[in-house]
Amino acid sequence: MESIASAPGKIILFGEHAVIYDQPAIATAVDKKATISIKKSQNDFTTLKSYDLDFEARLNTENKTYDIVTGRPGIIRYILETLYQVHDHSPIDIILSMDFPIGSGLGSSAAVTVATLAALYGFHNKKFSKKTLAHNAHYVEKKVQGTASPLDTSISTHAGLIYLGKDKKVSRFNVDFKSAFVIGYTSRKRSTSKVINQVSQLKNRCPDIVNSIIKTMGLITEEAKLAILKDDKDKIGELMNINQGLLDSIGVNTSELSRMIYLSRKYGALGSKITGAGGGGSMIAYCPTRSGEVYHSLRKYDNAIKVNISHEGITLKTRE
Amino acid sequence: MESIASAPGKIILFGEHAVIYDQPAIATAVDKKATISIKKSQNDFTTLKSYDLDFEARLNTENKTYDIVTGRPGIIRYILETLYQVHDHSPIDIILSMDFPIGSGLGSSAAVTVATLAALYGFHNKKFSKKTLAHNAHYVEKKVQGTASPLDTSISTHAGLIYLGKDKKVSRFNVDFKSAFVIGYTSRKRSTSKVINQVSQLKNRCPDIVNSIIKTMGLITEEAKLAILKDDKDKIGELMNINQGLLDSIGVNTSELSRMIYLSRKYGALGSKITGAGGGGSMIAYCPTRSGEVYHSLRKYDNAIKVNISHEGITLKTRE
Repeated sequence: MESIASAPGKIILFGEHAVIYDQPAIATAVDKKATISIKKSQNDFTTLKSYDLDFEARLNTENKTYDIVTGRPGIIRYILETLYQVHDHSPIDIILSMDFPIGSGLGSSAAVTVATLAALYGFHNKKFSKKTLAHNAHYVEKKVQGTASPLDTSISTHAGLIYLGKDKKVSRFNVDFKSAFVIGYTSRKRSTSKVINQVSQLKNRCPDIVNSIIKTMGLITEEAKLAILKDDKDKIGELMNINQGLLDSIGVNTSELSRMIYLSRKYGALGSKITGAGGGGSMIAYCPTRSGEVYHSLRKYDNAIKVNISHEGITLKTRE
Repeated sequence: MESIASAPGKIILFGEHAVIYDQPAIATAVDKKATISIKKSQNDFTTLKSYDLDFEARLNTENKTYDIVTGRPGIIRYILETLYQVHDHSPIDIILSMDFPIGSGLGSSAAVTVATLAALYGFHNKKFSKKTLAHNAHYVEKKVQGTASPLDTSISTHAGLIYLGKDKKVSRFNVDFKSAFVIGYTSRKRSTSKVINQVSQLKNRCPDIVNSIIKTMGLITEEAKLAILKDDKDKIGELMNINQGLLDSIGVNTSELSRMIYLSRKYGALGSKITGAGGGGSMIAYCPTRSGEVYHSLRKYDNAIKVNISHEGITLKTRE
């Protein structure tokens, strides 16, 4: 029997960084997924393979160690921790497929964790609610990272477009907001926690200024919420552009991201900005009618993918 | 007899755009000048020549018209208006020399106006105070442009590093702040009033957000004032970078400026930002110890000049 689970990645539309300082944020699941397939192994050891990421490893699920055969995937830690929490340590073969890049601010670790967890529940024929799944996946992320926002695992499980309020309550947008995005991602890997720490240090050095900027980011997110509910596309784009300048002001922009952001606007994006922590990572361009032009302009020099908002969260199927 | 007057250009260090909405600003004269030489003509008409700008024209000072011989200088309007205000319409030969580019946010029109006015006072052997000179030059700028800030003509006359308060009072920094700047200027000409108008429209569409950004720009200028008084170079640079993000957020950045701004930081600028209205125009890089590296990095693809703060305002000499 093979158990196959898929979970979507996410993008932050508004409020990254500010959300850490209790301002609201808007994020959405996208139609790019991490997929985990699990079946009983014919061998006496557990394997993990990913053709997309070009790696292969043998896992020791009891003590969370592994031997790499090829590749060097950081994502393996999330899979190992999930196995450690849920699996009975019997030998299995795991295949990971990725529609989107790892470590680029698109919630790859949350998607992989949610998919691994659901695939294991399927493999062991264990019933689960989405709420439990999101909760347990968040637990795994915390175990691996030290701290983790519950937002990524929640979006990866439930999908849709989500508003996270100042009170940390998650609410869903009751609109069918379908607009296309293009994601451009840089070759430069960065540590999210390092970038967050740099912003925190800047805030310590210039508290009045940075607090004022963070508060302004909150205002942008609140107006963006209204604009999304009204499907006011120009306004959504404009607010993304304003938000981008504020992200630049707190030092998380790079020359590479800036180049892609301006290029996408030139080719018809209504708005474009860093998505996620910045300092490398990814940018998003909002291009309801010009996603083709924007996609091809970015692809000339950089990596890019087209994504749409996804309302399909975790999916699980089993086959003999 | 030849009357020769020189007046410096200026750069805005902090507070452009915000200054229009009653926030403070910091600007400085730089050691690049506009120079006007006036002598009696051997002909029965008045000529204006500039070898630097590659133009030549015959002027009719009585009705403010001109015939171009070569070139197409917008700056001619300021010279004509000044002649109209002050000159007796006798035929003269005028030569304009420029150390810095026209129309790039460096106060070229104010410098040319102040220099023309002083050279005419010298030519006619008329005594004047700097206060009168700045006042009358501002009057000429207003006549030509419709509206004009008195700041440019004031700096061009008096030189030095200037703080313009919320109350519109100009005060001078009593510090010997000598640090080097590199100015990078784009090939893209833009209309200052058009850019200012775009910001005003953005402010009308998103008043809460843009007001908050403008207020934050004011906070930055206030902190920059303290940092300059303490000669805290890292802080000055950091505040310039924050200010740059806010200028980007109100839509006055361009891909070309952004590229130069990031390049200058890479090559050792402590801070870099748009100077003046943006939307094209110029950027400044603050590089107390690395001006050579920054200058050469910018010169690879763009136009750049090294400038220092100048404490020498208008100078006038006459020679037989």
